[in-house]
Amino acid sequence: MGGAPLVTLLTDFGIRDTYVAEMKAAMLAVEPSIHFIDITHEIAPGDVAGARYFLERVWRRFPSGTVHLVVVDPGVGTERRAIAVSRDGHCFVAPDNGVLGSVLDGADVVELAIPDGASPTFHGRDVFAPAAARLVTGTSLSALGTPCSDVMRPVVSRLRHDDGMMVGHVVHVDQFGNLVTDLPVPERSDVVLHVGARDVTPIHRTFGDVAFGELVAYVGSAGTIEVAVRDGSAARMLGLGRGAEVRVMPQDA
Amino acid sequence: MGGAPLVTLLTDFGIRDTYVAEMKAAMLAVEPSIHFIDITHEIAPGDVAGARYFLERVWRRFPSGTVHLVVVDPGVGTERRAIAVSRDGHCFVAPDNGVLGSVLDGADVVELAIPDGASPTFHGRDVFAPAAARLVTGTSLSALGTPCSDVMRPVVSRLRHDDGMMVGHVVHVDQFGNLVTDLPVPERSDVVLHVGARDVTPIHRTFGDVAFGELVAYVGSAGTIEVAVRDGSAARMLGLGRGAEVRVMPQDA
Amino acid sequence: MGGAPLVTLLTDFGIRDTYVAEMKAAMLAVEPSIHFIDITHEIAPGDVAGARYFLERVWRRFPSGTVHLVVVDPGVGTERRAIAVSRDGHCFVAPDNGVLGSVLDGADVVELAIPDGASPTFHGRDVFAPAAARLVTGTSLSALGTPCSDVMRPVVSRLRHDDGMMVGHVVHVDQFGNLVTDLPVPERSDVVLHVGARDVTPIHRTFGDVAFGELVAYVGSAGTIEVAVRDGSAARMLGLGRGAEVRVMPQDA
Repeated sequence: MGGAPLVTLLTDFGIRDTYVAEMKAAMLAVEPSIHFIDITHEIAPGDVAGARYFLERVWRRFPSGTVHLVVVDPGVGTERRAIAVSRDGHCFVAPDNGVLGSVLDGADVVELAIPDGASPTFHGRDVFAPAAARLVTGTSLSALGTPCSDVMRPVVSRLRHDDGMMVGHVVHVDQFGNLVTDLPVPERSDVVLHVGARDVTPIHRTFGDVAFGELVAYVGSAGTIEVAVRDGSAARMLGLGRGAEVRVMPQDA
Repeated sequence: MGGAPLVTLLTDFGIRDTYVAEMKAAMLAVEPSIHFIDITHEIAPGDVAGARYFLERVWRRFPSGTVHLVVVDPGVGTERRAIAVSRDGHCFVAPDNGVLGSVLDGADVVELAIPDGASPTFHGRDVFAPAAARLVTGTSLSALGTPCSDVMRPVVSRLRHDDGMMVGHVVHVDQFGNLVTDLPVPERSDVVLHVGARDVTPIHRTFGDVAFGELVAYVGSAGTIEVAVRDGSAARMLGLGRGAEVRVMPQDA
Repeated sequence: MGGAPLVTLLTDFGIRDTYVAEMKAAMLAVEPSIHFIDITHEIAPGDVAGARYFLERVWRRFPSGTVHLVVVDPGVGTERRAIAVSRDGHCFVAPDNGVLGSVLDGADVVELAIPDGASPTFHGRDVFAPAAARLVTGTSLSALGTPCSDVMRPVVSRLRHDDGMMVGHVVHVDQFGNLVTDLPVPERSDVVLHVGARDVTPIHRTFGDVAFGELVAYVGSAGTIEVAVRDGSAARMLGLGRGAEVRVMPQDA
């Protein structure tokens, strides 16, 4: 046991350019033994909400002491702040644009200074990466910046209860075309899901419980209801994407 | 010398979602010093045969003690078993759906229990990854599950000899459009290859032995015959893909 | 402090095939504690100039002692040499096809022998990777090959001064569609950039200094002038790619 310093990366930089490697090099220049875990670099350009969903989904699964570097930063170089955050043994470095979402609940936050000479278009390399490397090697949050309380909080659409029905939304479409919703596990099993123009019932355990090409609803690996097509794409079959409304109601309603 | 615990990953999860990172986090939760090598996550969804080809091609090249985590698992959550395998100093964790192919020849195999609370749609994270982490940190195979002898063996199309001709197939099309076959190095050099409607002869050493845009056959880096187009795509020029028949015969036949 | 042996990889192998993993396995067979940083594997097939641009851009950012493995090698298996290079505390292993570019200035260079049994189509795995692993574990350059002075030097288009104007080119289009040029920071701020059929002025600090959808010129993170569209793609808006001419001149010219 006893691991190397661990930094995760979550960006919209893609894997074609050298931007991710330049950030890793900047961290290795501070501490050459850092291990990197790429969460993904395939966030759509500037998609702050998409990155927030991913971060909220995974951060707690990493060991205590992990630093999470999140760079989806369409406002780079403008007045938006750069922040570092500590929460439940994890640290986070990101622009103050709402991308940290619920991570900010009860967290300690400092504002990072922008060093002279930092490229105004690449704070990921010149501001965030060095801060992440210092945090993962033991520098305290308070040594990195000044306390900051009025961070940006995203407006998140909430579940709505409506006459026995619960109304939620598709929060992510994964690479298989599965629709991940924000609907929690229903209390009763005899429910119907309205999604697109279709009714799906009952809630199954897994894809394999239905025939090839059929729609199936189940409790997904994030703990919320998902809709899939066995060996197919629910997003394509239903023509739905992120933000689409999904309703769950009792079968006898 | 003396390396870190090493786990390779081979999946159809792609690189856009958090699934790979969630598996790595599950392993780091067991042992934070694990090193990961991503073989690929770009297996087509559910393409068990494609993953098997890749695994058989690479596993022996890794150091003894490596654990190989293979998650191409269209039957996740159904009755198909989860298995862990030991063979020649390497370990493997995978669904019992044929994806391990020839690795199973003479291997020790145990069936993994599915822990309570494992997501029925993500055994990669909740069943296979924890088993891989325990294996790479020294837990014995027998401590992980119960011996299992009747594992699923894939039906693999074999080379056929037919009146002086050897008949094989394209087993993989790589990213350059090169056609990798299962035909071994011919005993004589004066052979002709029939592929699509074309005859290709002789067997060259490398792409550069023919002119730009020309078809070339050679013994590829997997030790079998390949067909390529110099600075082009043989798959596109010939309109062929995996499974296409390829024949080799003496020039004077 | 005190890091693991570090090898960066820069290839045109893509991430679908096992080629990158086979190279990593070949290095781990020499030294199992090597850490790998993937710069990118998404160089277009055979695009030596594109790989050269990336290498020149990033190598100095990595710690001293790093070995850089560069395999964009359309001439693999032909008479082109395999070389290893030492420069300012970094080492490089690559085909002698110009891909190392300005790294060769004042560098020590040796020619690598091609081992018997090396696959003529995969020197990356059988020649370059083993050499990189030996270099990163302390083998000296001179122990790896014979000194070599007449390496291939690419012809690079240079900046041209033309009647008060400076004429450069787009050297890279990044994943966001930003056009990276080879034009240095202008000495005066009141300049106009001619790019495509458009005039862009003045030189701003960052994307956020203009309105959504507008063209913006700024000094990019590589230290040269770039042209972007805020929240859009300059490459698409202007219909320009690598090699396009870009001119900078005083506003009053």
